[in-house]
Amino acid sequence: MTKIEILTDVDVQLAEFSGSDSSIADAARVSLNPSEIDRSRDAGLINTLLKKKHGSPFEHTFLKFYIEAPIFAFREFHRHRIGWSYNEMSGRYVKLPPRFYIPHVERPLINGGTSMNPNFIAGTGQQVRLVDRNLRLSYQAAWDTYEKLIGAGVANEIARSVLPVGIMSRMIASCNVRSLLHFLALRTDDDRAAYPSKPQYEIELIARKMEAHLALKFPDVYYSFNENGRVAP
Amino acid sequence: MTKIEILTDVDVQLAEFSGSDSSIADAARVSLNPSEIDRSRDAGLINTLLKKKHGSPFEHTFLKFYIEAPIFAFREFHRHRIGWSYNEMSGRYVKLPPRFYIPHVERPLINGGTSMNPNFIAGTGQQVRLVDRNLRLSYQAAWDTYEKLIGAGVANEIARSVLPVGIMSRMIASCNVRSLLHFLALRTDDDRAAYPSKPQYEIELIARKMEAHLALKFPDVYYSFNENGRVAP
Amino acid sequence: MTKIEILTDVDVQLAEFSGSDSSIADAARVSLNPSEIDRSRDAGLINTLLKKKHGSPFEHTFLKFYIEAPIFAFREFHRHRIGWSYNEMSGRYVKLPPRFYIPHVERPLINGGTSMNPNFIAGTGQQVRLVDRNLRLSYQAAWDTYEKLIGAGVANEIARSVLPVGIMSRMIASCNVRSLLHFLALRTDDDRAAYPSKPQYEIELIARKMEAHLALKFPDVYYSFNENGRVAP
Amino acid sequence: MTKIEILTDVDVQLAEFSGSDSSIADAARVSLNPSEIDRSRDAGLINTLLKKKHGSPFEHTFLKFYIEAPIFAFREFHRHRIGWSYNEMSGRYVKLPPRFYIPHVERPLINGGTSMNPNFIAGTGQQVRLVDRNLRLSYQAAWDTYEKLIGAGVANEIARSVLPVGIMSRMIASCNVRSLLHFLALRTDDDRAAYPSKPQYEIELIARKMEAHLALKFPDVYYSFNENGRVAP
Repeated sequence: MTKIEILTDVDVQLAEFSGSDSSIADAARVSLNPSEIDRSRDAGLINTLLKKKHGSPFEHTFLKFYIEAPIFAFREFHRHRIGWSYNEMSGRYVKLPPRFYIPHVERPLINGGTSMNPNFIAGTGQQVRLVDRNLRLSYQAAWDTYEKLIGAGVANEIARSVLPVGIMSRMIASCNVRSLLHFLALRTDDDRAAYPSKPQYEIELIARKMEAHLALKFPDVYYSFNENGRVAP
Repeated sequence: MTKIEILTDVDVQLAEFSGSDSSIADAARVSLNPSEIDRSRDAGLINTLLKKKHGSPFEHTFLKFYIEAPIFAFREFHRHRIGWSYNEMSGRYVKLPPRFYIPHVERPLINGGTSMNPNFIAGTGQQVRLVDRNLRLSYQAAWDTYEKLIGAGVANEIARSVLPVGIMSRMIASCNVRSLLHFLALRTDDDRAAYPSKPQYEIELIARKMEAHLALKFPDVYYSFNENGRVAP
Repeated sequence: MTKIEILTDVDVQLAEFSGSDSSIADAARVSLNPSEIDRSRDAGLINTLLKKKHGSPFEHTFLKFYIEAPIFAFREFHRHRIGWSYNEMSGRYVKLPPRFYIPHVERPLINGGTSMNPNFIAGTGQQVRLVDRNLRLSYQAAWDTYEKLIGAGVANEIARSVLPVGIMSRMIASCNVRSLLHFLALRTDDDRAAYPSKPQYEIELIARKMEAHLALKFPDVYYSFNENGRVAP
Repeated sequence: MTKIEILTDVDVQLAEFSGSDSSIADAARVSLNPSEIDRSRDAGLINTLLKKKHGSPFEHTFLKFYIEAPIFAFREFHRHRIGWSYNEMSGRYVKLPPRFYIPHVERPLINGGTSMNPNFIAGTGQQVRLVDRNLRLSYQAAWDTYEKLIGAGVANEIARSVLPVGIMSRMIASCNVRSLLHFLALRTDDDRAAYPSKPQYEIELIARKMEAHLALKFPDVYYSFNENGRVAP
């Protein structure tokens, strides 16, 4: 039997992008003639657009990401329907790779709050070891069954039934700046947020890596997003 | 430890709906005055709309379903983004119920074709028994680990990492006739289809139950859909 | 030549709807068993959903409107793409009816502010008369040309080129509660709004009539929408 | 009074784009490892995707257009809601430029068919002159009224009520290859189309200019689109 690989982080790569702070500002200036455009006012205009929730200018942009993360995080991700495009590795077409997610030691394991108002805190040493050991054992056992079934000629799509939602998957996800801001507003827990959100730790891992790309490619947007309570337009 | 429940089918209930064949035809007649409407031509008009891919009149309708199915089927379902709304039971908020999916004895287990052109055939008796036994054992083991972790105080959202994609989940899914036809065109394997599709057996189980509701509530649409190669407008 | 009709208001009828405050609350409770549902907490739950921007439960609803309004208002309306379906009377298929919009005497005619920060005030008596007289004359002249061209055998779709954006049109517009709240947040000017908007008067006329239907059919949603700054989830 | 400008064509510029035939093919290969990719099979894979209506790989692309066209054409354009983003010049914010559309002499003016099955044929010399003369006169008269009202201090948004749908407007429109193919399938009249469409001449003018950009930037997609009945995936 194959020994499974364990990962404690997700991976996010920006594969392609188009647009800039200036191109967003210019989309808002479609009523003006080119000669009327004052480029030094881009940042101020973007700030006004965010504040007034004029969202459409942010849509004339494109970001394409390669992402690797556990299936339970992708399940949350795919609820974002508008302004998002997905192609994910398929357990029908291929035998999935034996890569599984286990929480990093820093990831709090215990919910000290309620379902509606979660408040995560660190586990005890015993709880940390329990999680680590049981996830590994359970993943390996599921993988062994998966391989046994495939080895016996059973179709991929049947055999995968036993694979846990903690297995890693890969996808291409494309969006625009507007849909990305909506994702970030909902999938990060941030003190600056006017509408606080309590996303699961793992989808926030993804979100924060995407956010870093946004900050580099669209710095004016990013600055104003934070200044205005991280509310998507 | 809890003994898990095994299911070999999915469940689909139509909880609410609005609209009719006539209301679809009338949406296409918005340019006409009420006195110009000839109700006896509803079926013919609907047929023309489908044939000419005039899709918007089919959108002024509403169907709300309760669905129970394995997570791997919901994962495919949720790729339908446009004209679909979802609320699914969350393994973050509650401890999931111990209900798991195993293929019915009639479900073919072996892919005699390729990934791109699958051709499913029945498994041998030995393969059927192997699948049945191993899915049960693997599910029960995963469930036991899940309960052990929750029992030790670990958060639901961590513990669920070990749960397999063969576990049953529940959701509310709302759509309109147009988005439902797109779903049916892609998620059924039907001789009448101009664009043949090879969906996974389990999502076709869901699709066929939804289709039965469509056939009852929108019979003219359903008739013309089949007459015109099951191509969504 | 035909004498044109003048209208100073828009018309909005609720033709069909589905769902209720309770059905929205229940969509948020999909993780619960029916026996766990406490119906007396519907209003509180809806309030929490709005406050926390949990928008999906509001989508399992349906409202279908018949609307008559000037083309310039429909042009703004159709920028709402998500969760909205439209069928509008077509000037390609039929000769349009000779109905035109003129501002009601109460509609302020002068922008005392700027383009970005409009501040509308009443016109002088002279301005009111100037608008009334010139719109009527211009509309009638355009209509006469339209009829002359059609009378000479020119296609509807060519002849309509001369018709002004002040002509009335009719459409069927369907949405759900979530998409309607987004529309209301953007298309009304309201003191309770956390994100003030300055819509054109005529689209606010439409929005306020739709809002009245929402208030009657989904009173808990409506109450909480206003209590929470009229921010759509 | 200002003399209006007359235009007999629309303008379409490709301002930005991202993606290629290869990047579309690679999106479909997300289940494969990079080493398994055979670039020489891109065209064949794209053809298969189109034939089987696997649409999602075509979405990881971006095209941004600047378009100038008459309002009646934009009204049809904006019915394309999914995978399209728009920012249009606003007659609320600025005084519109005095540019108007008149059919080119080659544009057939007479519908020799019915509303549902239009069949356009050339007008007689008299009809051509009638259209040309009356559109010019009507446009100029409407423009003069527009300027008179603005000159008297009336708000832009009121004064524009008299402007005809034949006035030119400008917009930025962004899409992806999938949403563009849907637009082309519906807005062109083409012998190769499996589902023939009868769009208005002017929106087809726009569509054909967009199509030329698609053909240059995504030649494999374009070839297969035509080979497969111009049906969007």
